[in-house]
Amino acid sequence: MPETLLSSRNLAFELYEVLDAQALAQRPRFAEHSRETFDAALATARTIAEKLFAPHNRKADENEPRYINGRAELIPEVKPAVDAFLEAGFLNANRDYDAGGMQLPSLVSQACFAHFQAANAGTTAYPFLTMGAANLIESFGTDEQKRLYLQPMIEGRYFGTMALTEPHAGSSLADIRTRAEPADDGTYRLKGNKIFISGGDHELSENIVHMVLAKLPDAPPGVKGISLFIVPKYLVNDDGSRGSRNDVSLAGLFHKMGWRGTTSTALNFGDQGQCVGYLVGQPHQGLACMFQMMNEARIGVGMGAVMLGYAGYLYSLEYARQRPQGRMPDNKDPHSPAVPIISHTDVKRMLLTQKAYVEGAFDLGLYAARLYDDTHTAQDQLQRDQAQQLLDLLTPIVKSWPSTFCLKANELAIQILGGHGYTREYPVEQYYRDNRLNPIHEGTEGIQSLDLLGRKLAQNNGAGLKQLIRQIAATAERASHHANLDAMRQPLEHLVNRLQAVTLSLLGDLAQSKVASALANSALYLKVFGHCVVGWRWLEQAIHAELGLLNGTAADRDFYQGKLQAARYFLTWEIPGCHNELALLEARDDTCLTMQEGWF
Amino acid sequence: MPETLLSSRNLAFELYEVLDAQALAQRPRFAEHSRETFDAALATARTIAEKLFAPHNRKADENEPRYINGRAELIPEVKPAVDAFLEAGFLNANRDYDAGGMQLPSLVSQACFAHFQAANAGTTAYPFLTMGAANLIESFGTDEQKRLYLQPMIEGRYFGTMALTEPHAGSSLADIRTRAEPADDGTYRLKGNKIFISGGDHELSENIVHMVLAKLPDAPPGVKGISLFIVPKYLVNDDGSRGSRNDVSLAGLFHKMGWRGTTSTALNFGDQGQCVGYLVGQPHQGLACMFQMMNEARIGVGMGAVMLGYAGYLYSLEYARQRPQGRMPDNKDPHSPAVPIISHTDVKRMLLTQKAYVEGAFDLGLYAARLYDDTHTAQDQLQRDQAQQLLDLLTPIVKSWPSTFCLKANELAIQILGGHGYTREYPVEQYYRDNRLNPIHEGTEGIQSLDLLGRKLAQNNGAGLKQLIRQIAATAERASHHANLDAMRQPLEHLVNRLQAVTLSLLGDLAQSKVASALANSALYLKVFGHCVVGWRWLEQAIHAELGLLNGTAADRDFYQGKLQAARYFLTWEIPGCHNELALLEARDDTCLTMQEGWF
Repeated sequence: MPETLLSSRNLAFELYEVLDAQALAQRPRFAEHSRETFDAALATARTIAEKLFAPHNRKADENEPRYINGRAELIPEVKPAVDAFLEAGFLNANRDYDAGGMQLPSLVSQACFAHFQAANAGTTAYPFLTMGAANLIESFGTDEQKRLYLQPMIEGRYFGTMALTEPHAGSSLADIRTRAEPADDGTYRLKGNKIFISGGDHELSENIVHMVLAKLPDAPPGVKGISLFIVPKYLVNDDGSRGSRNDVSLAGLFHKMGWRGTTSTALNFGDQGQCVGYLVGQPHQGLACMFQMMNEARIGVGMGAVMLGYAGYLYSLEYARQRPQGRMPDNKDPHSPAVPIISHTDVKRMLLTQKAYVEGAFDLGLYAARLYDDTHTAQDQLQRDQAQQLLDLLTPIVKSWPSTFCLKANELAIQILGGHGYTREYPVEQYYRDNRLNPIHEGTEGIQSLDLLGRKLAQNNGAGLKQLIRQIAATAERASHHANLDAMRQPLEHLVNRLQAVTLSLLGDLAQSKVASALANSALYLKVFGHCVVGWRWLEQAIHAELGLLNGTAADRDFYQGKLQAARYFLTWEIPGCHNELALLEARDDTCLTMQEGWF
Repeated sequence: MPETLLSSRNLAFELYEVLDAQALAQRPRFAEHSRETFDAALATARTIAEKLFAPHNRKADENEPRYINGRAELIPEVKPAVDAFLEAGFLNANRDYDAGGMQLPSLVSQACFAHFQAANAGTTAYPFLTMGAANLIESFGTDEQKRLYLQPMIEGRYFGTMALTEPHAGSSLADIRTRAEPADDGTYRLKGNKIFISGGDHELSENIVHMVLAKLPDAPPGVKGISLFIVPKYLVNDDGSRGSRNDVSLAGLFHKMGWRGTTSTALNFGDQGQCVGYLVGQPHQGLACMFQMMNEARIGVGMGAVMLGYAGYLYSLEYARQRPQGRMPDNKDPHSPAVPIISHTDVKRMLLTQKAYVEGAFDLGLYAARLYDDTHTAQDQLQRDQAQQLLDLLTPIVKSWPSTFCLKANELAIQILGGHGYTREYPVEQYYRDNRLNPIHEGTEGIQSLDLLGRKLAQNNGAGLKQLIRQIAATAERASHHANLDAMRQPLEHLVNRLQAVTLSLLGDLAQSKVASALANSALYLKVFGHCVVGWRWLEQAIHAELGLLNGTAADRDFYQGKLQAARYFLTWEIPGCHNELALLEARDDTCLTMQEGWF
C-alpha cells in the first residue's frame, strides 16, 4: 500500500544517514534511547495519524466549527484523535521522564509530530498550541503558575493558545491596545479584543489557558511595553479544581479558506470588567518571552507547511502512477495503449519539483530540530552557543521557505490531477487551502524577510552567518570528493560566494542607517538566502546518497538515484535562477521603493 | 468610490491609446460605431456587472448548485443576471445587425465581457459557453441546424455546452469512447459518458444544446476519428417548438475548489439507447470544428484569468490604501501614527507585481481580440492572413500566461490582506479558488506548452513567429526614440534574440525527429515565450505612457508614471530572470527527461 503521510524510507534516510540520530542516543539526556525506541515512537505516531487523524481531515474541512450559544462546536472525531495523541505521550515527547515526558530528542519528536501534521493540519493545531503555551509557562512562570496551569496542560487536561493579534494591529504588535490593570490581590484585570486566535474555544479540554499580550498602565510605548499574561477560560481554585468562568468570551469565529478544522476565534477579554489575568515573567518583558514560543512555533509552522506539501506530493505521485493518459510524443500509433501519466516528462517535472521542495524542506526542518537538540545537549557550551546562533539565523528560513515552496508543491499536485485535482472529491485542493495559511500566520513572509535581513544576520556580530558559511563550506568540501557531485556543488558555491558579498554590503548599508534602501528588496533576499540554505541541505543529502550507492543494498539504489536527481534538479535548475534576484539586490534596485501610491 | 472590476482609465488607455479602437470604426463593418457607441456599450456592461453579477458572486460560491431529482438547481440570483446580459445584447455583441447583433468589434465586446468575468466568473460561464456553441453551429451547421438550434441560442432561449472530456480521457481526446450509431432517419444515437461539462444542466434556458464529440462506427482510430454532434437536452420539433426530453441525463455534479457557481456535470448520453444527435460538419472532422470553438474559448479563458487577477489587484490595492499598520523602517518613534500598508516597500512590491501581471495580461488579451478583428476586417487579405497566423501562434500564450501569472497575482492579493485575506469574509481567497481552474481547463498548461512548441511555431512555415519577431522589432524601434525606455528595451531585445536562437535550434531538433528531448522542457519554453510576449506588450504600453506624459493632461501624469513603473518592474525584474530557463533549454537539460518512475 502506498504511503500517504511521508516516505518512511526517506525519514530513515534523514534520521539515520543524514542527521545521525543515533549519535544523540550517546548523549546523557537520551541515554535510554536507541534507534529501536525512536522507531517505536515513530511507528506509534504513524498509526495514530493514519487511523485517527487522517480519516476526518476532509470531514473537518466540510464541517467547520460552528458558533453555538457563545461556544465553538467541533465534529466529534476530533476529540478521540487528540485523546489518542495525548495518551501516547506525544504532548510531552521532549519533556523529562520525571515530568511525565518521553525525553526524546527534538529531532525524533518533530519527526513523530510530522505524521500528524501531514494527516490533519486542523486537528493537530490543538495540541501544537498547547505545547507552545506549556513551554512558555515552563520557562517563565512561577512555581504556583506551573502547579495550577502547566501541570494540567502536561496532563492534557488544559489546552493553550497564544493571543497576540488585535483587529487594528496584525503584524504590528507595538500597537496592541489590550490593557491590564493591577488588582489589589496581585492579579490583573484585562480588557481588550483579540482576533485570529487559533484554538481560542472548543470543548476538547477542561480549560483553555490563553497566553495574552497586553499593556500595563505604566507601559512604555511600543514593543518595550508589552507584558505577558495567563488568562484562563475558567478560573482555577488554589487546590487546582476548576472555578467559575473567567470574563473571556467568544465573540465569533472566522471562516477560513482552509485549515477549517481549527477554530479561529475573536475573543473579548473583560467585557464585564472581570477578566482575571496573571503576569508571566517581568512587566514589559512579554514580547521577549513570547518570542521563545514564537520561535518554536515558527519551526513548527515550517514543518506543518512541509508536511502538507509532502502529503500532496505523495498523493499526486500515486495518482500519476495509476492514471493512464496519452502516449509518448514520438509515438504516433493511436492503437497503442495509453501510458501512465508519470511517463510524461512534464509530469515528471512537476513531481520532481515537488520532491525537491518537500524533501529539501523536510530535511531543513529536521536539521533545525537537530540544532535545537544541540542547544541543550551538545557536549560543551561553545557547541551549544553555536547551535543556538545558527538556529536563530535559520528560524526565518525554516518558517518561510516551506511556507512558500511547499505551497507551490501543493499547486503542482493539483495540476497533476487536472480536473480531478480541482474537485473536492480529491484531497489535493484542501492541502493547498490548508497550506495557504502558512505564509501568513506566525509572521508573514514580509515579516520574516525583515527579521532575517534587518535583525538575525547582524545578531551576535554575525556569528550565526559565520556558522552557516562554515557549514556550507564543510559540506562543499566533502562533496568535492565525489566527482559526480561537481555539477551540483559548483552552482551552489558560486551563489553562496556572491550572496556573502551582497550580504556584507547590505549589512554595511544598514550600519550606515541606509535602512530604507537596504531593506527595500528584503523579499528577494529571503528567497535567495532560503534557496542557498536548501541548496546546501540538498548537497548534503546528495553526499549521503552517493555514500548510500557505494555502501547500500541493491534494493536502495532507486531511492538514492531519486535523491541525486532531485538534488540535481534543485542545484542546477533552481539555484542558478537566483542570480537575477542577487543582481537586483546588488544594484539596490529601487523600482518598488520609488513606486508612489498615487501611481497605482 | 474605488473601481472594483477594472480600471476604466486603464481600459480607455488600452482601447484609445494603445490599440486604437477608433481606427476600427473606420472599417466598413464597424462604420456605424464610434468611441461614443463603444463607451456606451462598456458603460452598460459595467452597470449590469456591478448591479447584477457582482452582488451574488459570494453567495453562489457558498451555495453551489445542488443535484435534486436529476437536475441541477442554482441560486435564484443567477437567472436575472443572465437575462439582463441577454437583454442588453452582449450574447450577440459581434454578430451582424441583421442577425440581431450589435456588430461590435471583438476588441470592444471582449472589453465589455471582461466586466462580467471580473464580477462573477461562475455566472458568466453560462452565456460564455453558449456563445462558443452558437459560433460553432454558425460556422459548421446546416441551415436546418441553424434554424432549429442557432436561432434560439441567439435569442437567448437555448444555452450551449461543449462536451469533450470523458472519465478515462482528460487531455487525450484521441481516446474518447462515446459512440454515435447512424439511425435510419439520418440522425444518430449516441452512447457514452462525459465529465466536467460546465453548464451541463440548469434551468436558465428552455433547452441546452450540447456540442458533443463522439466516434462513428467506421471511425479511424485517434483524433482523426472524432465527429461533432448537436445533442439537445430536449428534442426540437420541426416547427421549432420544444419536444420531449432527449436521452441525456445528469449523472451528478462535481464539487469544485472554486468557480462553484457554474455547474460542473457528469452527463450520461444514451442510457436508454435513445439519445438523438445530429452530425455537425463532416464525419471524422469534429476535432477541427471543435478547435475553432476551443481557440475562441482559450482566448476567453485567458481573459477570465486576467479579470479574476484584476479584481483581486483592485481589492488589495484599496485595502492597502485604507489599512494602517506599522511604521517605516527608519522610524523608531512608537508614538508616531501607523502608516497605511501601501507605504511599505514590500507591499508596493506585491501591488506592483500584480499590476504588471494583470495589466500586462489585460493588454495581451485585448490585443488578441484586436487581431481577431483584423482576421475579418483588415484592409486586404494579406493583412488578414498575417493576423490569423499571429493569433494562432499567440493563442496558447493568451490562454496560459494569464492562467499562471494572474493566479499568482491572486496569491499576492491574499498576502496583502494577511489573515483577513485568508478568511471568506473577504473576496480575495475566492478569486484565487476561482482562478485555479484556468490553468487546467481548455487545455492544461502542459498541453498549451506542447501546442506552442510542437505545433504552432512551425505552422505555416513559421509565419506566425516571423510576424511576432517583426512586431517586437517594430515596437523596439519605436521605443528606441525614447531614451527613458532604454533600460527597459534592452533586456527585452537581449532575451528575444536569445529566444529566437533557441527556438530555431529546437525546431531543428523537431525536424530531425529528436522529439522527446526537444519537447522535454516545453514548460520552460512556454514560460519564456510568454514572458517575451508580455514584455513586448509592456514595452508597447510604456511607449504610449511616454507619449501620454508628453501630450497628456496633468491629471494623467500619475497614471502614466504608474504604467512606466510597472513596465520597468516587468522588463527589469522579470525578463532578465528568464535567462536561467533559456540556458536549460539551450543545453537540452535532461534532468526531468531522465528521471525514472522507480526513483520517486
